Amino acid sequence: MTSVKGKAPNRRTVKARETRTRMLDAARQLFVERGYGATTLADVAEAAGVAVQTIYFTFGNKRSLFKEMVDVTIAGDDEPVATMDRDWFRAGIDAPTAPEHLLAHVAGSARVLERVAPIVRTVEQAAGSDPEISGLWPDADPRYTVQSTAARSLMAKPGARPGVSAADAADVLYSILSPELYLLFVRDRGWSPERFEGWAVSTLRAQLCAEN
Amino acid sequence: MTSVKGKAPNRRTVKARETRTRMLDAARQLFVERGYGATTLADVAEAAGVAVQTIYFTFGNKRSLFKEMVDVTIAGDDEPVATMDRDWFRAGIDAPTAPEHLLAHVAGSARVLERVAPIVRTVEQAAGSDPEISGLWPDADPRYTVQSTAARSLMAKPGARPGVSAADAADVLYSILSPELYLLFVRDRGWSPERFEGWAVSTLRAQLCAEN
Repeated sequence: MTSVKGKAPNRRTVKARETRTRMLDAARQLFVERGYGATTLADVAEAAGVAVQTIYFTFGNKRSLFKEMVDVTIAGDDEPVATMDRDWFRAGIDAPTAPEHLLAHVAGSARVLERVAPIVRTVEQAAGSDPEISGLWPDADPRYTVQSTAARSLMAKPGARPGVSAADAADVLYSILSPELYLLFVRDRGWSPERFEGWAVSTLRAQLCAEN
Repeated sequence: MTSVKGKAPNRRTVKARETRTRMLDAARQLFVERGYGATTLADVAEAAGVAVQTIYFTFGNKRSLFKEMVDVTIAGDDEPVATMDRDWFRAGIDAPTAPEHLLAHVAGSARVLERVAPIVRTVEQAAGSDPEISGLWPDADPRYTVQSTAARSLMAKPGARPGVSAADAADVLYSILSPELYLLFVRDRGWSPERFEGWAVSTLRAQLCAEN
């Protein structure tokens, strides 16, 4: 958690943020356990130990609470910093060579996948039962946008594999660093997150970097 | 369609089989469009142009109809032949080298994935809404059994990559030849089924076959 620049957060701000985190954690747990439809804001309030009015006041309604839970889970915190402005993403973009970019990018993506994997099915089921849920994320596919930006940078660096277009690289990053593939290895086949990360690095290096 | 050995099917058998196929096609379309819960046997009967009693008589109930639709979609026909006894699977097992086994195995798997991809989400949603649906397939994970059998055969052949265990190979086949990954490339990123097949062959060859 970072504080507002040049100013230490006061006790009231710290307390409000803790309460917010507690509500989001309770929401994540209940949405995953019971599903979106079966979870009420009263359930979340009870689990978080707050009044239901506090939930309404902080998040507005169930859809907004759900969106905030998903966004915070992807980001890892509730700082208003987009994925492509995150330190781990910038470290990749700033790396001098394609193999170094790939290493940083997979490491950062693996941390996101670890957080996101447990909620993937819940999000899909929520979107299936309430069509307006998908509309909460106006970009058609933010995950593709992120991978496509990384691919353009990666394939323009020394050590990138000749003859592979940025578009092809984006498709491969999008699919290999997907929650779906992560779950097949880690949930279904029992691989550790570290083992998946190592596999993703060597698979992607073979396809996107020059032989050496 | 093959006929019973040594005996041409009579007109009545042919007609019954055509009706069965029509009911299963109608069921697939309605289950995918409306979901398992919202589809009634009366809907399926109407779409297939048969009496609802014909559905009951042929399939028993909605769950059995659903199971039969899924099994026939995976197999590509309604012959009672398990995946591992199918010609395409045996062609892989009988191939003399690991690279040749891989080529045959990916080609056969790609045909299965093409058929299965459109119903994957429907099956997941049905299992989510009716826990007994999962119980219709008593094997914990038939897909893993198939890939594991292929992996054991493949890694014992000349041209297999040294140092890769059959268990590791099975995990990689299971994940790369999954409906989930197929959908990411073909549905989300617009790759043709042939392009996915080529990508899967070269990705798997790099990981499971010796360099040459």
